[in-house]
Parts: sequence; C-alpha cells; structure tokens
Amino acid sequence: MHILGIDLGTATTGWGVLIGEKGRWKIGDCGAILTSKEKPLSERLAEIFSELQKLLKHWQIEELALEEVFFNTNDKTAMKVSQAQGVVKLAAVLLKIPVFEYTPLQVKVAVTGYGRAEKRQVGLMVKKLLNLKEVPKPDDTADALAVAFCHASSRKVKIRL
Amino acid sequence: MHILGIDLGTATTGWGVLIGEKGRWKIGDCGAILTSKEKPLSERLAEIFSELQKLLKHWQIEELALEEVFFNTNDKTAMKVSQAQGVVKLAAVLLKIPVFEYTPLQVKVAVTGYGRAEKRQVGLMVKKLLNLKEVPKPDDTADALAVAFCHASSRKVKIRL
Repeated sequence: MHILGIDLGTATTGWGVLIGEKGRWKIGDCGAILTSKEKPLSERLAEIFSELQKLLKHWQIEELALEEVFFNTNDKTAMKVSQAQGVVKLAAVLLKIPVFEYTPLQVKVAVTGYGRAEKRQVGLMVKKLLNLKEVPKPDDTADALAVAFCHASSRKVKIRL
Repeated sequence: MHILGIDLGTATTGWGVLIGEKGRWKIGDCGAILTSKEKPLSERLAEIFSELQKLLKHWQIEELALEEVFFNTNDKTAMKVSQAQGVVKLAAVLLKIPVFEYTPLQVKVAVTGYGRAEKRQVGLMVKKLLNLKEVPKPDDTADALAVAFCHASSRKVKIRL
C-alpha cells in the first residue's frame, strides 16, 4: 500500500510517501512543492497540479490523505489553500485515487496521542514513528508525513476491526 | 473576443459565453453544469473540470471571468465552492486562458448600476443588455452572464482609456 500525505499551502505544499508492507509502514520519500509568490494564483495551482501528478504516478500512489482546511471570516489565505485543495483532489480523482480527509485534531491525536500538541512535538513524533534520522524540514513536510501516518493508522484500525 | 463567465457552485455551476465583435457584445450560449449531491466532492470537481474543458475548447474562449468567493466563519459551502474555483482556474490556465475575478459588488454595479441590486434585478438587466427573450434560468446562469458582462464592460473601459 502506497499512501501520499499532503500538507497544503499555496507557497509551500509538503508531501510524504508512506509504504505499507506486512503491517509495517516505512517512509518512501518526502519533500515540498514550492511555488513563487510573484506568480498569479492560477499559475501556482497549475504548478501544484503538475508536480502532484508526477508524484502520484512515480510512487504509484493508491490512497491520498489531506488535512481539512479551517476558515476564519473571509480569510484570504484559507481561500487560496482551499482552491489548491480542489486542484489536489482533482489530480487524485483523475487517476482514480481515493482521497481521505482528516481534521488537524485527528492528525495530532494519531501522531502524538494529544490533540493540542505543538508543531515541534508533531515533528519529533514523526521522526520517531518513521525511524528517521532527523525531523523532516520544512514543517510542511513533517505535517504531510503526519497526515499520511494518521491515514495509515486509521486504515490499520479499520482492517483490524 | 470570446469570454466565458462562470457562477460557481458545487451542485450548479452557471456559465455564459459572450462574443464581442466591433465593440458590441452578443450571447454565444449559456447553461449550467449540474453535479449530483450524492457523489463525493472530488468526483464532482472532476465533472466540473471536464465539462469546463469542453466549453473552453468548443467556444475557443480567450478570457474567463469569475466572481470572488466570500466566506463566513468556517462556512462549509464556501469551502467547497472555493475548491471548485481552484479547479476552474486550473482548467483555464492549462489552456493558457487568463482568469479575471470580480467582487459581487463590481458585478452588480456593472449590470444594474446599483451595488445592492437584488438577484431578480440582475436577471432582468442581463435579459435587457443582451437582447434575450427571457431571463436566463437557473439564476446561476443569469449570474454567469452578469459576470461575463461585467468583464466585457471593464475590458471596453480599459481599451477606451
């Protein structure tokens, strides 16, 4: 089972691939898609779409996990992130890859066991859970692996049940 | 000049094509893309993307006009509409079609001359301005033509200046 976790942004979109074999999960690769703030949003959406298509195909991703976007009143950043989310879902569904969404609370609980964990704690737990030498950088990449891990754990529970 | 105006929704996305020749604008066609509420959002995004690609190619659209989405706190509908907006922008940019966004206020002023116009007034003015026999239905289609008209007017002004 190959899972891609995504932590969405318009400037930095973190990604992390988890590979599940015989009930264990290991990291495939991780990184971040960077787009220029100088460019119009529509072009940045196209860049995210194109890079994501490459990742989905290269890693033969079978399931995609995302964190839900939360909004404050007329929050411009959240609106942009939501547009990027639409593009990410489209890239997956065009390749018939199912998309799963988790709340930030679900991700934190899955990784640290604690819903109010700080970003640093999430990073440290990702490092520990996936046997990494260092906490992945930038934070968006660590968060993407956390979302992927959250989905991997929930899959395991579903299968066990 | 061929302009496509879009009024975004996840269930009903209105569209309208305006054709500009010798400083005058006439309607090409208009309609609505309907998606089923039963289906997951990702599949509905793919349907909107696919239908829009067909429209953009069929009408050889040169510019696309959209209304900006406004949010209330954690408004689930607006989040979905924003995701659809990302997909619409992507469809345009992949065909190198520039995207223009207008606020609801700008659209109302362009069509009725009055920023607090009601939906019915917008529909009636669209009918009048484009020499239509009836007010386009559903409302989403009339709104899409209003956005296209708003863009057409602003283009004319820009050229005149």
